[in-house]
Amino acid sequence: MAASKPALRIGLIGTGFMGKTHAFGFAAAPRVFDLPFELVMHIVADRTQELAADAARTLGFARGVGDWRAIIDDPEIDVVDITAPNALHKEMALAAIAAGKHVYCEKPLAPLAADAREMADAAEAAGVKTQVGFNYLCNPMIGLAREMIAGGELGEIRSYRGVHAEDYMADAASPFSFRNDPVGGGALADIGSHALATAEYLLGPIAEVLGDCATVIRARPDGQGGSRAVQTDDVGRAFLRFGNGASGSVEANWIAMGRKMQHDFEVYGSKGALAFSQERFNELHFYSADDSAGRRGFRRIEAGPDHPPYGLFCVAPGHQLGFNDLKAIEVARYMDAIAGNAPEPFNFRAGLRVQQLVETIHQSAREGGWRRP
Amino acid sequence: MAASKPALRIGLIGTGFMGKTHAFGFAAAPRVFDLPFELVMHIVADRTQELAADAARTLGFARGVGDWRAIIDDPEIDVVDITAPNALHKEMALAAIAAGKHVYCEKPLAPLAADAREMADAAEAAGVKTQVGFNYLCNPMIGLAREMIAGGELGEIRSYRGVHAEDYMADAASPFSFRNDPVGGGALADIGSHALATAEYLLGPIAEVLGDCATVIRARPDGQGGSRAVQTDDVGRAFLRFGNGASGSVEANWIAMGRKMQHDFEVYGSKGALAFSQERFNELHFYSADDSAGRRGFRRIEAGPDHPPYGLFCVAPGHQLGFNDLKAIEVARYMDAIAGNAPEPFNFRAGLRVQQLVETIHQSAREGGWRRP
Amino acid sequence: MAASKPALRIGLIGTGFMGKTHAFGFAAAPRVFDLPFELVMHIVADRTQELAADAARTLGFARGVGDWRAIIDDPEIDVVDITAPNALHKEMALAAIAAGKHVYCEKPLAPLAADAREMADAAEAAGVKTQVGFNYLCNPMIGLAREMIAGGELGEIRSYRGVHAEDYMADAASPFSFRNDPVGGGALADIGSHALATAEYLLGPIAEVLGDCATVIRARPDGQGGSRAVQTDDVGRAFLRFGNGASGSVEANWIAMGRKMQHDFEVYGSKGALAFSQERFNELHFYSADDSAGRRGFRRIEAGPDHPPYGLFCVAPGHQLGFNDLKAIEVARYMDAIAGNAPEPFNFRAGLRVQQLVETIHQSAREGGWRRP
Amino acid sequence: MAASKPALRIGLIGTGFMGKTHAFGFAAAPRVFDLPFELVMHIVADRTQELAADAARTLGFARGVGDWRAIIDDPEIDVVDITAPNALHKEMALAAIAAGKHVYCEKPLAPLAADAREMADAAEAAGVKTQVGFNYLCNPMIGLAREMIAGGELGEIRSYRGVHAEDYMADAASPFSFRNDPVGGGALADIGSHALATAEYLLGPIAEVLGDCATVIRARPDGQGGSRAVQTDDVGRAFLRFGNGASGSVEANWIAMGRKMQHDFEVYGSKGALAFSQERFNELHFYSADDSAGRRGFRRIEAGPDHPPYGLFCVAPGHQLGFNDLKAIEVARYMDAIAGNAPEPFNFRAGLRVQQLVETIHQSAREGGWRRP
Repeated sequence: MAASKPALRIGLIGTGFMGKTHAFGFAAAPRVFDLPFELVMHIVADRTQELAADAARTLGFARGVGDWRAIIDDPEIDVVDITAPNALHKEMALAAIAAGKHVYCEKPLAPLAADAREMADAAEAAGVKTQVGFNYLCNPMIGLAREMIAGGELGEIRSYRGVHAEDYMADAASPFSFRNDPVGGGALADIGSHALATAEYLLGPIAEVLGDCATVIRARPDGQGGSRAVQTDDVGRAFLRFGNGASGSVEANWIAMGRKMQHDFEVYGSKGALAFSQERFNELHFYSADDSAGRRGFRRIEAGPDHPPYGLFCVAPGHQLGFNDLKAIEVARYMDAIAGNAPEPFNFRAGLRVQQLVETIHQSAREGGWRRP
Repeated sequence: MAASKPALRIGLIGTGFMGKTHAFGFAAAPRVFDLPFELVMHIVADRTQELAADAARTLGFARGVGDWRAIIDDPEIDVVDITAPNALHKEMALAAIAAGKHVYCEKPLAPLAADAREMADAAEAAGVKTQVGFNYLCNPMIGLAREMIAGGELGEIRSYRGVHAEDYMADAASPFSFRNDPVGGGALADIGSHALATAEYLLGPIAEVLGDCATVIRARPDGQGGSRAVQTDDVGRAFLRFGNGASGSVEANWIAMGRKMQHDFEVYGSKGALAFSQERFNELHFYSADDSAGRRGFRRIEAGPDHPPYGLFCVAPGHQLGFNDLKAIEVARYMDAIAGNAPEPFNFRAGLRVQQLVETIHQSAREGGWRRP
Repeated sequence: MAASKPALRIGLIGTGFMGKTHAFGFAAAPRVFDLPFELVMHIVADRTQELAADAARTLGFARGVGDWRAIIDDPEIDVVDITAPNALHKEMALAAIAAGKHVYCEKPLAPLAADAREMADAAEAAGVKTQVGFNYLCNPMIGLAREMIAGGELGEIRSYRGVHAEDYMADAASPFSFRNDPVGGGALADIGSHALATAEYLLGPIAEVLGDCATVIRARPDGQGGSRAVQTDDVGRAFLRFGNGASGSVEANWIAMGRKMQHDFEVYGSKGALAFSQERFNELHFYSADDSAGRRGFRRIEAGPDHPPYGLFCVAPGHQLGFNDLKAIEVARYMDAIAGNAPEPFNFRAGLRVQQLVETIHQSAREGGWRRP
Repeated sequence: MAASKPALRIGLIGTGFMGKTHAFGFAAAPRVFDLPFELVMHIVADRTQELAADAARTLGFARGVGDWRAIIDDPEIDVVDITAPNALHKEMALAAIAAGKHVYCEKPLAPLAADAREMADAAEAAGVKTQVGFNYLCNPMIGLAREMIAGGELGEIRSYRGVHAEDYMADAASPFSFRNDPVGGGALADIGSHALATAEYLLGPIAEVLGDCATVIRARPDGQGGSRAVQTDDVGRAFLRFGNGASGSVEANWIAMGRKMQHDFEVYGSKGALAFSQERFNELHFYSADDSAGRRGFRRIEAGPDHPPYGLFCVAPGHQLGFNDLKAIEVARYMDAIAGNAPEPFNFRAGLRVQQLVETIHQSAREGGWRRP
C-alpha cells in the first residue's frame, strides 16, 4: 500500500540555481515515480535565518535555518543535500556522514581529488548512501546509448569523440571568478568533468590520458578596476585509451562562442555508431551496418515511452523531457539506492573518479606524456 | 512579503495522463514562478473513493473524493480543474461556474462548438476566470515568434504553413475509440486544433477556410471481434485566409507514420521568415533579409534566459525545457489571470474559437467552398 | 566497341542559363556514362551570328548560327535542343518535329496546355523522341524514393505533402517580368510544376485537385517609372487525390523569404515514410516501422554508389552530386531513349500532363470545387 | 577576343577514378569559366596502348599512349597531369619538370616528405607551375570561411576542431592494401591530410603538434588465405598550436562506421564561430555575437552566387555544387596560375607541407611530446 511508505526527510543546504533545481527535483519526482519513500522537504539552510525562511516558502520546505549545521544536528533529517559553493562541500559532507546521514552533493564533489577521496572513504566507512549530481547521465537517451553499447548493438567499440563546449566564459570582459581559481577551476574541471563522466558511463574505464590545456584569455578584470592573471584552462583536451581497447578524445571548452550546451559524443563500433548532442538531448542518432544496402543511414531516434523512464513523464513519444526533469530522475534513482533497491547510480566514489581523471589530464598537459588515472 | 500570499485551493477532476500533467504543473509552478497565490492541492476526484485516495497520495492532494460533485460543492475550492473525458467537460464546467468557481479545462473545451459557446457565455456571465489547456502556446519560443511577428521583424506577413502530424492512429489494427466518434472526433479536432490555435496565436484571426478531410482507415476493430466503420478524418487540411491578408494552410494528420510531434510551422514575411518544429521545441529558426549579402541564412536560435520565462527554469541557455514545464508555465499564467494581473491567456472564448474553426473546416470539406468561421 | 558508336548531332537553340546548363550536360554525360552515341555539339543558335559564334566557342559547339531555323534546316542535325524563351517553344518544336528531328525542350513545354498538346501529338505522329527538362527527377535519391514506394517498402501510401518554395520574387521592388504574364505565368506554373511532376513521379496519377491561388504583391514596377498590376499567383496551392487513393497537398511559393530551393516532400505509408529536401538533395530520410521498438527513427540515407547512377560520377558515397550533374543524367537518359534502349523518361506527353495539372488547379482556384485534370 | 586564346595541351597519366575526375574537370571548366587558355585534351596514358585508346575515347582525349614517357617526350604537351599510383608520383613529376612541363599531381604528392621536398625544389628551380589536388579547398563555402576569418568577422581566433572521418576501411574483412603500406599509408596520411590542409588554409600555419595514432584492425586478409599484420593507423589524432595563438585538434578516422565524408570543422573566435560539414558542403553555419540579444544562433548560409565562383555554375542559390564541380574549379584556378594571373592555389610546396605535418604527427605519436613541423 502506498499509504505505508516511510518518510524520508531532506535537509537542503544552498538556495542558488542548483538548490532550486534540487527542490524542483524533490517536488517533481514523487509525481512522476512511485518512490519507495514519502519525501519530506524538511529544512532548508541559507546564510541567514531570514533568507532561509523565504527560501523555505518559495521552494516548499517546512522551515528554514540560518546555519547549515542545524540540518546536520537535526536527528529527523535522513538526507543532507549540498548545493553550497564547491569549497564547502567537503566540510559539510564529512559532518553529515559523521552524523549518519545520506549525502547528496552537487558536482564537483570537491575541488581536489584528495578531498574527494576522503569524502568517499568516509561515506563508505559509515555505510551511508551518496550521490553526486551528474544529471546528464539520467537522460533516457544516454541510458539507451549505454544499453546499446553494452548489448553489442554497435559491435566491438573502436573509437570515441566527446566534447563539452559552451560560451559562458567567452567574453574577455567578464571578471575573474571562482571558476578561474587555480585550485579546482578551469574548463576541464567545470564541464570537461561532464564529458569524462559520460565517456566512462558509456564505454567503461579510461586507462590512459594524454592532456592538452590552453589558457586563451590570460587576464580578466579583477572587479576593482585592475586585471588579474588567469592560469586555469579555457580549453582542455585529452586523448584517451579505454580499458576495452578503444581510443578516443574529449574536449572541454567554455569559450566556444555560440555553443550553449554542446555536450556531444560520437561512438564508433564494428557494427554501428551513435551520435548525440545535448542541445537536442531527446534524440539519439544510430547507424546500423546491419541495415540493408542502400538503406543505411543515421536514424534519429526520438525519446519516447520505449526509453524508460520517459513514459512516466509522458505517455506519448516526441514530447520531450527538459533539463529539470533529468534532476527528478536523479532524485528517484537516489531514492531507490537509499531503499536498497538498486546500486547508487553515481556515488562519491564515482565523483572522486571524475576528479582523478581531471587531475591526471592536468598533470599530463603540464608534464607531457600519457598518464594512468 | 511572500508570507502574505493568499491561498488558492484547487480541485482536480480526473487522474489520467492529463490529470497527472496538471498535478505536475501545480507542483512545479510555485518552485519556478513567484505566483500571486499559495497553491493548495486540495481535492482530487476519481471514479471511486479508493482510486481517488490513491491518486491524492500520488499526486500530492490533501484528499480524494469518489464523486466530482463533491469538489463543486466544497465552498473552499477556488479553482475546478477538469481533465475528465471530453464528453463530460460541459456538465462539469457549467456546474463549477454556477458555483462561482474559476474553471481550468483540458482541450477540447467540448466536442461541439455549440456546447463550448454555452460554456464561454456562462463563464463570462458569472465573471469567473477560465483557461483551456493549449500548452504548446506557453513555449517561450512560440512567444518569441509571436513577438517578432507583432514587432514587425518579419515585415508584412505573407504566407503561413502549419502542420500537426503524429502517428498514434497509424496502425489500422488499433481499435475504434472515442477519438473516432463522429461527434467531436477525428484528427482535425484532436490535433488540428493545436495547429489552428498556433496559427491564430501567431498571425491573428483566420477570416476564411477551405477544407479537405480524408478518412484513410475506413474501418477499425470494434473490440468484439468485428469491425466498425470510421467516418472521422484521419487527415484534415485547410487553406486559410487571415484577416491580415496573408494566406496559408494547415494539415492535421494522425496517421503520419514516423512523426511523433510534428507541430510545425513556417511563416514568411516581406523581411524575414520563421520556421519551427515542436520535435525540437527549444529552437526557433529565423531568417532575416536584413543580414548582409552572402551571410544570410536561417539562424537556429536556442531557448535561453533571453526568452522569458525560460530563465526562471534555468539560468543557462541551451539546457531545454520539457513538455511538462510548458504546463507549469500555463498554470502560472492562469494564476496571474485569476489575480487580475494579466488577461486570461487562453480562456473558454478562445477554446470556443478553435472549435468553430474545426467545425467550419469540416463543413467546408463536406459541402465545398470557402467558409467564414 | 566504343569505336563503332554512331554520332548524334545536336543543335542547341538558346545560350542563356539553361543553354549553358545543357551544354554542360552534353559535355559531361559522355565522360560519366557509356552513351549509345558519340555526342557531337554541332550548332548553337543565338540572336545574331556574332553572339552565336562566341557561344559556340564558349560552350564547345562546332559553329554558331544567327537564326535558329538554320538548325532545323540542317540535315545533319539529329536533335534540336530548345532553351529559348517559353513563348517560342511551340513554333520551334513543331518545326523541328516536321523536319524529323528529335526534340529536347526546357520546361515548361508551352505556356498553355492546348499548345503543349499540339506539340505532343505532333511528336507522337512523327515518331520522334522528345524530352522535357524536369531534371530534379533525375536525382538518384528521387529515384530511390520512387523505387521504395513502388516496391512496397512504405506499405500502402496514405498521404503526401509537397512544396516548392523559393524567394526569387519576394522583393516587391523587382519589376514586372515575363514570369508575371497572365498567360503561363505565376508561381504555380513556374515552380509548382516541379512539385506536381515530383508528386506524380512518386505516387502516380493525380485524380482530382482543389486549388487556391493568392496574389500577394499586387503591383510591380513596370520598368518605366510606373507600376503594373499583377494577376498571377505568388502562392499557388492544391489539395490532391491520387489515383491510388492517397490524399495530399502541394504548395508553390516564390515569395518564401529565405527559401532557396525548398523542393521538399513527405510521403506517409502504412509501413514507413520518406522525407526529402532539395536543399540537401543528396539525402533521403526514411522511417521504417519494421525497425525494432525503441530503435525507430528517420534514417538519413546519403547518396552513394548503391543509388545508381551516382557511382558513375564518384566511387565513394557522401561526396555529393551537384545540380549540373542532374542535367548530365537527364542527357544520358534521353540518349538511351533515342537509341531505343529505354522509354522516354519525361516526354512531351509528360510535359503536357504537368501543364494540365497547373491549368486545372488554376481553374479550381478561380471557380471553386474539385476538378479532374 | 576569345578567339585569340592560346592552346594549353594536357597529357593525363592514369585513367582510374581520379583520372576520370580530372578529365571531367578539363571538360567542365571551359564551359563554366572564361579560362585564359583553350584546353586541349591531347594525350592520355594507360598501361597498354589498347587501354589508353579506349580511355582516350571515353574521356575525350585526342589519343592514347601505352607508356607515360611518351607524354613527357611530346614537345606539344604543356601540362602533365599525374593520377597514377602514389608510389609513381615522384618519378613522373621529376621527369615532367625536367622536360619543362607544368605538373598537376593528385594527392598525396609523395608517400614521404623527403620525396615531396625534392619534387617541390625541382619545380621551383625549373620555374614550372604545379598543383596538388586538394579539391575540397576549392569549395566556395570553404573560401567564404577563409575570407570571414581573414576579414575579422569572427574576431580573434581561439580554437579549432577538425575531423575527417569515413568508414571505407571499417570492415575488418577487407584485405590489406596499399593504403596499409607502412610507407605513406594510414588514415592520417590518406584523409588526415585533408583535415590538416583545411586547418592551415583557414587559420594559417600550425606551429606545433602532439600526436596520437591507433591501429584498431591489427591484421587484415592478405588476399592469399592468410592474414597480414597492419602497422598503420586507423585513427590518427593531433592537438595543434597555430602560429596565430589558437589551439585545436584534428582527427583522421577511416573506420568511423556510418560516416561517408565527415570532413568537418568548427572554428571559434572572440566574436563568432563557424561550423562546416563536408556531407552538406554547400552550407556554412555562422554564429555572430554581434546579432542582437535573443536573436543569436548559427545561421545556415546556403551556397549561392554571393559565394564565387558558384554563380558561374548556376545563377540561383541553393541548387548546389557537386564533388566533380570542385575539380572544375581546381582546374580553372590552376589555369589562372599558369597564365600568371594568380598565385598557384596549392602547389608542390603546399603539398610538401601537408606531408611534413603528417610525418611530424606520426613522429610525435611514436616518440611522445610536442613537435614542430
